[in-house]
Amino acid sequence: MRIARTSIAAALALALPAAAQEAPKGAPAPSEIVAAAPAKDWVAIAPSDLLVMTLAPDREGNKRQVMIQLMPAPFSQGWVGNIRKLAAAKWWDGLAITRVQDNYVVQWGDPDGEDKAKAKALPRGLSIVPDKNYVSNGVGNSVRPMLWTIAEGDELRRGVQRASPPRPAMPPLHRPEDLYAPGAGFRDGWPLAKVYQTAWPVHCYGMVGVGRNYSPDTGSGAELYTVIGHAPRHLDRNIALVGRVVEGIEHLSSLPRGTGALGFYEKPEQRTPIVSIRLASELPAAEQPSFQYLSTESDSFAKYADARANRRDPFFILPAGGADICNIPVPVRRMPG
Amino acid sequence: MRIARTSIAAALALALPAAAQEAPKGAPAPSEIVAAAPAKDWVAIAPSDLLVMTLAPDREGNKRQVMIQLMPAPFSQGWVGNIRKLAAAKWWDGLAITRVQDNYVVQWGDPDGEDKAKAKALPRGLSIVPDKNYVSNGVGNSVRPMLWTIAEGDELRRGVQRASPPRPAMPPLHRPEDLYAPGAGFRDGWPLAKVYQTAWPVHCYGMVGVGRNYSPDTGSGAELYTVIGHAPRHLDRNIALVGRVVEGIEHLSSLPRGTGALGFYEKPEQRTPIVSIRLASELPAAEQPSFQYLSTESDSFAKYADARANRRDPFFILPAGGADICNIPVPVRRMPG
Repeated sequence: MRIARTSIAAALALALPAAAQEAPKGAPAPSEIVAAAPAKDWVAIAPSDLLVMTLAPDREGNKRQVMIQLMPAPFSQGWVGNIRKLAAAKWWDGLAITRVQDNYVVQWGDPDGEDKAKAKALPRGLSIVPDKNYVSNGVGNSVRPMLWTIAEGDELRRGVQRASPPRPAMPPLHRPEDLYAPGAGFRDGWPLAKVYQTAWPVHCYGMVGVGRNYSPDTGSGAELYTVIGHAPRHLDRNIALVGRVVEGIEHLSSLPRGTGALGFYEKPEQRTPIVSIRLASELPAAEQPSFQYLSTESDSFAKYADARANRRDPFFILPAGGADICNIPVPVRRMPG
Repeated sequence: MRIARTSIAAALALALPAAAQEAPKGAPAPSEIVAAAPAKDWVAIAPSDLLVMTLAPDREGNKRQVMIQLMPAPFSQGWVGNIRKLAAAKWWDGLAITRVQDNYVVQWGDPDGEDKAKAKALPRGLSIVPDKNYVSNGVGNSVRPMLWTIAEGDELRRGVQRASPPRPAMPPLHRPEDLYAPGAGFRDGWPLAKVYQTAWPVHCYGMVGVGRNYSPDTGSGAELYTVIGHAPRHLDRNIALVGRVVEGIEHLSSLPRGTGALGFYEKPEQRTPIVSIRLASELPAAEQPSFQYLSTESDSFAKYADARANRRDPFFILPAGGADICNIPVPVRRMPG
């Protein structure tokens, strides 16, 4: 079984290799809980929801692929449909990674996109999504329509479990799940913020969104970015999120930083070429990668989230007694084969 | 004036280059508030608190230096003294970056440190710091001594300002500054968590800490790491923080990820060699870099933090009404010259 490094990386402690020092016995680490989760707790990602991005090989000739899960219904918005059309039209082939800004984002698309004379023509039939689709006003009135409406009393699966720490630690304190929205949690594999009956996806590490210019422009989906730093939650409800990287983010996060404004590359030769971006469902069957995520409604996820919030494995001295939503990455793995 | 990219990177929006589209007029962005801060709001970092790490040049022969501010009194603990001794002894010269784990940490030190037969001898006179120095129990009793004690009623400078958003947005909700500790804030340029009268530094992007093995080992300071992903706040009070990267973190964060367990490199040739690590105060005067941080007690910082929490600059549609402590990086710049 292979677990995508994007998902369990942060679960590992700072200890030096186990070869050198045997771990004392103790409670399981979050990664061990994930590894022990039964098959029934894993949910397949549909190939029609998976984008396969192939970059030019690195200097040593190693293959570089980035796998992106698009948000399925009910979370998908008009932009996701555009991305499907752009992939089907092979629109990104031959374009490039144009921007890498440290502790912020990697962005890709048409390097000439801002120059009308040179810009690559977009395929026909893309939707223009109005900016009211970013947000609700959080109150439930009609100023902005709901992004997603959740029935009254239907709470998201909470990521943060409050357990009794095994040693004297913090006094009991009122600490909500999320600084940005009090009802944050997980549903159907996605991290969501929630206020009353309105929910929206949040900008955690690895989430993928749609670049845009100034409002009322909302972007077509042709310019995409992924988060490679501390969660920039101020972007929530200001830019559309459409998915997340489930494997290969290191091919983006380890790229040289751009030295121009906002981390754009200053010279064309600094850009990493995109060979192709395809929906997995449009690849030959033998080339279709298969992934699963750990159901956020499963018992295994509850144990995992609890262990992230209350580290009891041997490396830790004092459990935090909580974890922010972006510090509980949803585990994703290759389908065991 | 040059502002360290580690500090203002996250302040920039996702807009495409300004050359292509002129920004509408609006409230200043956080980076503009920082750029306008008067000289009196900037505090010099003492050369004796600055580590200069020189890596081997990159493939194109470009110089790679990483500048690390050590925590000064009253925040410094025994580990900081060890780091000064290790730098004075030129202990790190010829050692290497040994580990790069995506969305987590970069670590450096002696690649043979775990092999007693091969390990490089540490200089004499290093302190052994007991693990009780990581933490207090948060209640003020004597189970664990205080890390730092703050007088009753003396609150940290809050990073998160609650302003009235300019458009209909979130209803008023009780949202504290920090999920992990309710009194989090800033003092003397550092992000701190606080419960009652006990404060401790927090694991934000770019913070530097001391690698260790299993408790009761606390590390000597010879193995250091820096955060290159979403804030791993579960490490707070479990590992010692000793400083932060104030320039050049891209030379660490863009390194290839290690493919061994915990992101360690599997082959010696994959490691990036460390040419030297020196205290700036021990360099010839002409080679001493000079930095300043924006006083966290200044009016400029209050405006900056407010703007981070309530983005009113033209790119934004809906201000978040809050920001977590690691989403308000303390601005640092080269001394204007």
